[in-house]
Amino acid sequence: MIAFNLHTLKIDNPAMTVSLKSIMTLTTLFFINACGADNSADSVWRALPLKDTVLLTLPHGKVVIELAPQFSPKHVAQFSQLTQQGFYDQTSFYRVIDGFVAQAGPKDGSKEDRSVPLLAMESEWQTDKKWTYTPVQANDLFAEQTGFKDSFALGYQASKDSNFGKAWLTHCPGTVAMARNNEVDSASSHFYVVIGQAPRYLDGIMTIFGRVVYGMQHIQAIQRTEAVEGDYAVDHRDYTKIVTMQLMSDVAKADRIHIEVENTESTKFAERLVKRKAREGAFFYKKPPPVLDVCQIPIRSRRVK
Amino acid sequence: MIAFNLHTLKIDNPAMTVSLKSIMTLTTLFFINACGADNSADSVWRALPLKDTVLLTLPHGKVVIELAPQFSPKHVAQFSQLTQQGFYDQTSFYRVIDGFVAQAGPKDGSKEDRSVPLLAMESEWQTDKKWTYTPVQANDLFAEQTGFKDSFALGYQASKDSNFGKAWLTHCPGTVAMARNNEVDSASSHFYVVIGQAPRYLDGIMTIFGRVVYGMQHIQAIQRTEAVEGDYAVDHRDYTKIVTMQLMSDVAKADRIHIEVENTESTKFAERLVKRKAREGAFFYKKPPPVLDVCQIPIRSRRVK
Repeated sequence: MIAFNLHTLKIDNPAMTVSLKSIMTLTTLFFINACGADNSADSVWRALPLKDTVLLTLPHGKVVIELAPQFSPKHVAQFSQLTQQGFYDQTSFYRVIDGFVAQAGPKDGSKEDRSVPLLAMESEWQTDKKWTYTPVQANDLFAEQTGFKDSFALGYQASKDSNFGKAWLTHCPGTVAMARNNEVDSASSHFYVVIGQAPRYLDGIMTIFGRVVYGMQHIQAIQRTEAVEGDYAVDHRDYTKIVTMQLMSDVAKADRIHIEVENTESTKFAERLVKRKAREGAFFYKKPPPVLDVCQIPIRSRRVK
Repeated sequence: MIAFNLHTLKIDNPAMTVSLKSIMTLTTLFFINACGADNSADSVWRALPLKDTVLLTLPHGKVVIELAPQFSPKHVAQFSQLTQQGFYDQTSFYRVIDGFVAQAGPKDGSKEDRSVPLLAMESEWQTDKKWTYTPVQANDLFAEQTGFKDSFALGYQASKDSNFGKAWLTHCPGTVAMARNNEVDSASSHFYVVIGQAPRYLDGIMTIFGRVVYGMQHIQAIQRTEAVEGDYAVDHRDYTKIVTMQLMSDVAKADRIHIEVENTESTKFAERLVKRKAREGAFFYKKPPPVLDVCQIPIRSRRVK
């Protein structure tokens, strides 16, 4: 008993039916695969390119991060370069606040810290009429529209005449972004992963450049550095260290973790959103409001050989 | 460098000023304390009664749960009784989905499982004109109004003539609620803790009866039971067990953890909400929308001797 099977998190498993449409779909799929594209409307899964994938090895587990060079090219370039230099190896998660963020980087003010160039903010971009995304929800508390693009959650605001607009990646659990000082263009190497309720008030003023696609439970298990008032202080020697941070393309073949993620541009994904909003099934004896929090839609990952 | 001090999570530390109002306030405070009340507008902290506090001991750490008998009396009564019988000791967290919930209880269909009476839903209640709460946000995606009452996050909807309304506790990270089958009144002993982005579509159709006030990081570190597709399956022998679950009043005095929580009925708390919404400080070189997600306002706890 106690099903509590919120099937919304389970993999959709519709009965197999082969229609003319499916056959046409299949044909298209083969064609598109042959061209190397993988986010057509018919591909449920999208393989992550090894060079845009990071393997973060923690003492207690392995984590995979998908980088977003299409949204934050300079941040990804610098982060990738530092990663390749072994810059993050043996650095600590020195600011870990339960329900908020796990932040890591070199020792504050150290030679390594000061050696890294500052980056210009890459938090939002202009869109034109041709730009597309998968819409999720209108009139979200923090955005006129929310949606997904390339599996990343985003906010969108159209111009008054709808001829163009602006879009920005949004902070959800698992989001990887660069920390900064008070100045807008002051990020360098310190990064954080969101480990609690989406701090969306940071949207548009921080550069998001990746997201955790595997091993998020190990990020959640990182030693907190801030204790509850009145409790025993956390010893800095207990802080969780990064064992190694590597681009997946630099990892020995046998040790690579190959991940495919849900293609948010697919027809199946759009269908899943509709279904999730409707909350069908006997469990929902009373229907919740037909709305979706863009950060409460898990984007599935799978491990492939 | 890299301050990234989102002071919003830090304790407000305004300069001390003694005004006539403060002195009057102080007098009131003494009076109220003498009566045993502790959620007056002037008490920043509220001590948790030992009998409505649960000590959940996990293999890797101690967790404290505040129960909510004022909102869900029957669920709290049954949960407390089971806890006192040692019912949960050595049971497992058998359904732990990263970003969603950690659920525990007896073995499905076992004698223990079947022995527990079913409970009638206690998910919302009617309010009258005298009922008060601390408002947070209007036109939240899931509620006409959100707010807090006795440190619990809630949703509120007024009747058309505003003479009465309904209120319900809302699912936030750390929320403790009873699982159920498809039927509305089918909860018994299986409970879950929210460990990811607030699943607010469950509001009003599940009974929330507590919240984690200490040790949430240990809940976050519970072994997940569902693996990513294609990954090594999680062995059920690795599931995290509850070592013991006790009412704090039943714990040996030396082992008790005394917690005080932020009094959400205080003037100071209302001030903190205004400040948090305004996002003052040089860090916010561009202001986010002046809105608050009720689940993204950490209610502080402190440990006292």
